[in-house]
Amino acid sequence: MLGEARETEHGLKSSSRLNKAGHRYISQAAAKIDVDFDYDGPLMKTEVPGPRSRELMKKLNGIQNAEAVHFFCNYEESRGNYLVDVDGNRMLDLYSQISSIPIGYSHPSLIKLLQQPQNLSTFINRPALGILPPENFTEKLKESLLSVAPKGLSQVMTMSCGSCSNENAFKAIFMWYRNKERGHNNVTKEELESCMINQPPGCPDYAMLSFMGGFHGRTLGCLATTHSKAIHKLDIPSLDWPIAPFPRLKYPLEDFVKENQQEEARCLEEVEDLIVKYRKKKKIVAGIIVEPIQSEGGDNHASDDFFRKLRDIARKHGCAFLVDEVQTGGGCTGKFWAHEHWGLDDPADVVTFSKKMMTGGFFHKEEFRPNAPYRIFNTWLGDPSKNLMLAEVIKVIKTEDLLNNATHAGKALLTGLLDLQARYPHLISRVRGRGTFCSFDTPNDATRNKLITIARNKGVVLGGCGDRSIRFRPTLIFKDHHAHLFLNIFSDILANFK
Amino acid sequence: MLGEARETEHGLKSSSRLNKAGHRYISQAAAKIDVDFDYDGPLMKTEVPGPRSRELMKKLNGIQNAEAVHFFCNYEESRGNYLVDVDGNRMLDLYSQISSIPIGYSHPSLIKLLQQPQNLSTFINRPALGILPPENFTEKLKESLLSVAPKGLSQVMTMSCGSCSNENAFKAIFMWYRNKERGHNNVTKEELESCMINQPPGCPDYAMLSFMGGFHGRTLGCLATTHSKAIHKLDIPSLDWPIAPFPRLKYPLEDFVKENQQEEARCLEEVEDLIVKYRKKKKIVAGIIVEPIQSEGGDNHASDDFFRKLRDIARKHGCAFLVDEVQTGGGCTGKFWAHEHWGLDDPADVVTFSKKMMTGGFFHKEEFRPNAPYRIFNTWLGDPSKNLMLAEVIKVIKTEDLLNNATHAGKALLTGLLDLQARYPHLISRVRGRGTFCSFDTPNDATRNKLITIARNKGVVLGGCGDRSIRFRPTLIFKDHHAHLFLNIFSDILANFK
Repeated sequence: MLGEARETEHGLKSSSRLNKAGHRYISQAAAKIDVDFDYDGPLMKTEVPGPRSRELMKKLNGIQNAEAVHFFCNYEESRGNYLVDVDGNRMLDLYSQISSIPIGYSHPSLIKLLQQPQNLSTFINRPALGILPPENFTEKLKESLLSVAPKGLSQVMTMSCGSCSNENAFKAIFMWYRNKERGHNNVTKEELESCMINQPPGCPDYAMLSFMGGFHGRTLGCLATTHSKAIHKLDIPSLDWPIAPFPRLKYPLEDFVKENQQEEARCLEEVEDLIVKYRKKKKIVAGIIVEPIQSEGGDNHASDDFFRKLRDIARKHGCAFLVDEVQTGGGCTGKFWAHEHWGLDDPADVVTFSKKMMTGGFFHKEEFRPNAPYRIFNTWLGDPSKNLMLAEVIKVIKTEDLLNNATHAGKALLTGLLDLQARYPHLISRVRGRGTFCSFDTPNDATRNKLITIARNKGVVLGGCGDRSIRFRPTLIFKDHHAHLFLNIFSDILANFK
Repeated sequence: MLGEARETEHGLKSSSRLNKAGHRYISQAAAKIDVDFDYDGPLMKTEVPGPRSRELMKKLNGIQNAEAVHFFCNYEESRGNYLVDVDGNRMLDLYSQISSIPIGYSHPSLIKLLQQPQNLSTFINRPALGILPPENFTEKLKESLLSVAPKGLSQVMTMSCGSCSNENAFKAIFMWYRNKERGHNNVTKEELESCMINQPPGCPDYAMLSFMGGFHGRTLGCLATTHSKAIHKLDIPSLDWPIAPFPRLKYPLEDFVKENQQEEARCLEEVEDLIVKYRKKKKIVAGIIVEPIQSEGGDNHASDDFFRKLRDIARKHGCAFLVDEVQTGGGCTGKFWAHEHWGLDDPADVVTFSKKMMTGGFFHKEEFRPNAPYRIFNTWLGDPSKNLMLAEVIKVIKTEDLLNNATHAGKALLTGLLDLQARYPHLISRVRGRGTFCSFDTPNDATRNKLITIARNKGVVLGGCGDRSIRFRPTLIFKDHHAHLFLNIFSDILANFK
């Protein structure tokens, strides 16, 4: 079985209706860029994981639990939307490293950046950014993160990963809340002494309110707000922080307007009840954390109205409003930040990011600035080499108009998925999405996993989320013709699914 | 004042006794390497921070609290042991970005690595290592981390920073403890459901025991074990986890043998008492975390015997023994891991690292392997570009015999510090160190900070720790002659100190 070599080539050579339709939309310029560094379709040589991957998995498993490994990759050969594995299989990648590759593999702009001698130092001399930043630190932050900062958020801190971003955002919120409570900057001796032994009043009994189904990372603070899968949380001590229900919308949305409004109202009411209830037991909700689309938890959406009302509730109760854009941020929904779709009057207080942004970190309003140095701090505070690459990535996003591309390609993908849903309602339901951030449900976990495996062997990398969903997380250079190519392949899979 | 340009050149041109003595020890080969990429001494043009740094600090302060910034750096011009700032000042760096630069700035081997076309992909295509590792992942881990793994620890996980390393080490320990308690792999429905809402039995009431004065990071889990400075912990909710006293040794050690033994015995007794006391209130101590030398907390040492006994206590009570080598690891104590000095019969269970190792992560015994995939997991799980550089760094450490160098240069430094202590006992006390990991106490915080500022203006970057200590954290290419150069400069400073 392992030695079996099966060559299946999809792509430009394919002649199906959807694919042709897709190619009609490609401009000459867009096609040229693709030809430069994207492949023209999947090319399969073995099943995946193939023999070489399996050999390497066995080796890795000797030094760590490698059971989550899908296959081993040849990143040197991976280009654009295509991920090449160590057995020479080339797959259209709609999962892009759990949504963390912004402009595709081996993008020419990033290669060029690495080849410029003046950038060498940034990669090999990693500084302690909080005390000894490089000369261009502020400039690169302005070119990159601040050039896409959500409205009203003038401040930014960088961190090394998504979990650290949320952990430090929590801390900034707790400090802000306590200073508000104090009403002055004078800290008591009792506070200074009690905090050293983890006790109040120095370590106050504050909480972040989170939503069932949310995912905000896996370090202990983050994990207390993560409620997507038991495997993330089992056996790890946690904190008694309030957890509200997240709306479970019925699809198609237009058929369930009233029911969904009621569902959202119920969840919002519960949020307010929890804040009051926890305050009664002397546990203060200092902030609310929410994803614009619950990703890991199953691509659960709520209406823009739900989020606007949630923001109002946060303000009404004096809680900070933290929007976790680790997975939704970076442009895939068609706006740089998914929460920009909501049309908030009063901006979010804190917005966290990582993944496609290449560096972790968070934006915040000026009032959330720590009132002393070293309060939000660690050795690295991110990595200037990531800021450098991000500045280039953002330049590409702007030059190539990739936000509009995400809207356009996302529409092609969603339309195609709705068509497949109409044809295969026993396999596909609850098709939903914003930009290319699309997903659908399958009947159950087993069917979902089978579909992902079959698709992979046909040259398409997909990801799951929740207990039965498939999520699309392509790069920002995923174009209409990639959508049509996928829909072609997947249509065949569904037609033959047993 | 800002425009004042003062040129002060120290170094090879200096002719003092200590400096000459130092140079006698340099071999021709060592000198050649130095000439290749190290500077020959500090060169000061302005006070530090100079006018350009001050200008940049103001700009950065517009987008984040920049009060912790010492000065801005020109990393392109920084080489070897010398850090160059944006005003053209060149300083001997004995702090090396809070102990995180292993083989000096702009090391030729790392430049070469960056210039090799086959390495480009590793820097621009960052994978989700837990699911789609690159072909050479296991090989690079073997070349780098596993080639220096502490005895008995065959398993390794990589993480993006020190805090994430400790957070995930805690999690591995909690899972191990719970599986031990269960005695089987069957998880109950009640556990799976309760963990989703942060409640026992799914989220058990487990704790890590830590030491007063310890520093293990700043995310919420880590912060519950960090007790070095109030500013790190103030206003952040915490966990009721036990905190034991860390020995406060009297110096010189040979004059206080009995007192120090008693002090260590007292602390160890308290550890056992706390484990028992917390178990009585149903809070289970699953592990003990300790630094081989409490770094951030003031460079507090304990005897090898203390740590051997602590390891015995952990085993006796069924607790995991976690050694945090984030700051002590990587060779600066003269062994690759500081805890290798203890001569443990039974190895530590888990050892965490970051900083000089370029990637975060932890080693552990096989029994601490998670029993299922995705239990210790996040999107990036470190960064293969850091593993690639670390493999090169470790090659340099081995080729250039840098562990022995740390012992040798450390001896030169410590001997010189003891000499200065004898001459200036009102300014310098409690001189202590292992390898180049040296420190001394000053009379108080104000004197310490004044000494650091004066030294910086004379061309030496030093770091503080605890409430009155100065710590030495040079790179591994810090040689005897750098020690003598520093001692020269510092001797002058002390002689003129008012």
